[in-house]
Amino acid sequence: MNELGAKYVAPSAEAARTREAVVKWLNDRAVSLAEIAELVYEIQKGYISGLTLRDCLESVERVLEKREVQNAVLTGLALDILAEKGQLGEPLLTMLREDDSLYGIDEILALSVVNIYGSIGLTNFGYLDKVKPGVIGRANNQKGKKVNTFLDDILSAVVAAAAARLAHRARDTGLEKKFRPA
Amino acid sequence: MNELGAKYVAPSAEAARTREAVVKWLNDRAVSLAEIAELVYEIQKGYISGLTLRDCLESVERVLEKREVQNAVLTGLALDILAEKGQLGEPLLTMLREDDSLYGIDEILALSVVNIYGSIGLTNFGYLDKVKPGVIGRANNQKGKKVNTFLDDILSAVVAAAAARLAHRARDTGLEKKFRPA
Amino acid sequence: MNELGAKYVAPSAEAARTREAVVKWLNDRAVSLAEIAELVYEIQKGYISGLTLRDCLESVERVLEKREVQNAVLTGLALDILAEKGQLGEPLLTMLREDDSLYGIDEILALSVVNIYGSIGLTNFGYLDKVKPGVIGRANNQKGKKVNTFLDDILSAVVAAAAARLAHRARDTGLEKKFRPA
Amino acid sequence: MNELGAKYVAPSAEAARTREAVVKWLNDRAVSLAEIAELVYEIQKGYISGLTLRDCLESVERVLEKREVQNAVLTGLALDILAEKGQLGEPLLTMLREDDSLYGIDEILALSVVNIYGSIGLTNFGYLDKVKPGVIGRANNQKGKKVNTFLDDILSAVVAAAAARLAHRARDTGLEKKFRPA
Repeated sequence: MNELGAKYVAPSAEAARTREAVVKWLNDRAVSLAEIAELVYEIQKGYISGLTLRDCLESVERVLEKREVQNAVLTGLALDILAEKGQLGEPLLTMLREDDSLYGIDEILALSVVNIYGSIGLTNFGYLDKVKPGVIGRANNQKGKKVNTFLDDILSAVVAAAAARLAHRARDTGLEKKFRPA
Repeated sequence: MNELGAKYVAPSAEAARTREAVVKWLNDRAVSLAEIAELVYEIQKGYISGLTLRDCLESVERVLEKREVQNAVLTGLALDILAEKGQLGEPLLTMLREDDSLYGIDEILALSVVNIYGSIGLTNFGYLDKVKPGVIGRANNQKGKKVNTFLDDILSAVVAAAAARLAHRARDTGLEKKFRPA
Repeated sequence: MNELGAKYVAPSAEAARTREAVVKWLNDRAVSLAEIAELVYEIQKGYISGLTLRDCLESVERVLEKREVQNAVLTGLALDILAEKGQLGEPLLTMLREDDSLYGIDEILALSVVNIYGSIGLTNFGYLDKVKPGVIGRANNQKGKKVNTFLDDILSAVVAAAAARLAHRARDTGLEKKFRPA
Repeated sequence: MNELGAKYVAPSAEAARTREAVVKWLNDRAVSLAEIAELVYEIQKGYISGLTLRDCLESVERVLEKREVQNAVLTGLALDILAEKGQLGEPLLTMLREDDSLYGIDEILALSVVNIYGSIGLTNFGYLDKVKPGVIGRANNQKGKKVNTFLDDILSAVVAAAAARLAHRARDTGLEKKFRPA
């Protein structure tokens, strides 16, 4: 069996560079992976025995290695930045600057991130996007100064995906808690 | 221009019969359209001037006239009923009976309902599915006695879709509130 | 019953302006609505009695009045244009310029267009995006000179959505052909 | 780092049993994994250097280990079987028996399979579902005798997902062909 059939294929140099770019773009928007990991921990700690912040950070890092996720993050953040600089035509520019409530392409990009680990992440995504805890709320509150129309949805999606990934792994490793929190 | 080009095409007799079947199936699962409409009102009242419960009920009725919605409701409820009767093979039967947290086909069907009015409904869907207010919570609490694995997601989706439909119409009719609730 | 409850709500002045912008942006990318309508006709003529090119053009126009569709078209074309001008950061710029086969955000935006008329449009979308007939192929062939990474997927999606809309209406008006073409 | 953080987590005993059930259910509908693998090979051979049928079979097997895929296959095939036995209520029963062209829940389940490897599989899914080569066409042609409303869409989706998985791996291992087939 050739390399295509290996159980685990390491990301290529290209994928590693893209992952670095994704982390840098997030940092440039004042978001750290540690803050994302904290939200994963809050959401998932009631469901997995012995879950640590380090597990959550590691899950966020694996999510950000997926090409579909990288492409959604880069595309969404590029649109936020271009809207901030005024480099988009109208009427798109105003929609993004004002985070028009009927503009749903940010949710669409977020959905493509969530779906990578299956539809079980949809509920958490919607909940996070509504309640906006932690770094998601901070991104949302900067609106007015910055354009973060895509950023808050993307953060909610990355948290939901990293949580869904851990949920699948907890089942496979027997670490899933038998009795869920009320 | 022939009938295909009319601005509004009334539902066919077939569609009207299917809509009746959908309402009956929901009633058989102890759900009334009025209860669904109440949740639409709660979610949307802060955003639309002069919104009434009657507007919300009417929006739920229009949502239930859409074929994609009808098909999702009928398919999801059929699966709940069959699981209740034990007429599904294993391992599917146990997944549905226990509302396995890693079974996401209920979310997938719900997504096909929400998408009819665009991705702006995704956030409300996820929030409702997590918080489970009103009739959604009642459906969820019956689990154990009844199998409602699909029902609660479908109710969340119908509420989110009816709310998104109203949001689009409020913009078109100038009834959208300028200042959103905090 | 107030305006929210009307069976047909005319698009607002804002929506009409956005629709004009969408048509202009398409024209600027050398695409006419008539060419899109021709593909709708080719796909759907075997299924609807007495279907005319005018019906198809009218369906394309209705599809382009939907906000979710407008937002997807404007966002996708903006990204093509920005890539053409070199105004996107790396590695996103190269992905879009080379239409990287593993970049799937163009398909994601297209999906949000198709879904407005339900999942029955998915098959036609995929077929059109693979076979690339008419104006879709022309958009694709300009690659190298122009960046049309999003344009061809968006055109496939608009055709698939307009066809799905007609399929629903043909059922409601009794114009659906009983015997389908082989 | 605990087991959650391992690069590769072997499927649990439960997941292995579910995978066996999925293969058995497919065999009971007269579908072999080898036939699915052949279609993956046909679609992907122009894009990957040295691709073998064995690589394709292995990719199909990995796809069928994913829970979201297993759940979609089991749910779809259960609905086909129940429709065949007449154990569904009306109007759902007739829709499934006649493979109603406006019933799109089969495409929705298929989409949840395709999305696991990102949106790049959407185009292949639509194309396969329209052209219906090999085992997909055989499933479709049995309609009348058997109810295979879900089966053909599910097969198209599994082929598209296995092909998308190989495309990602070919990039990571440097086996992607530089010049694509015309």
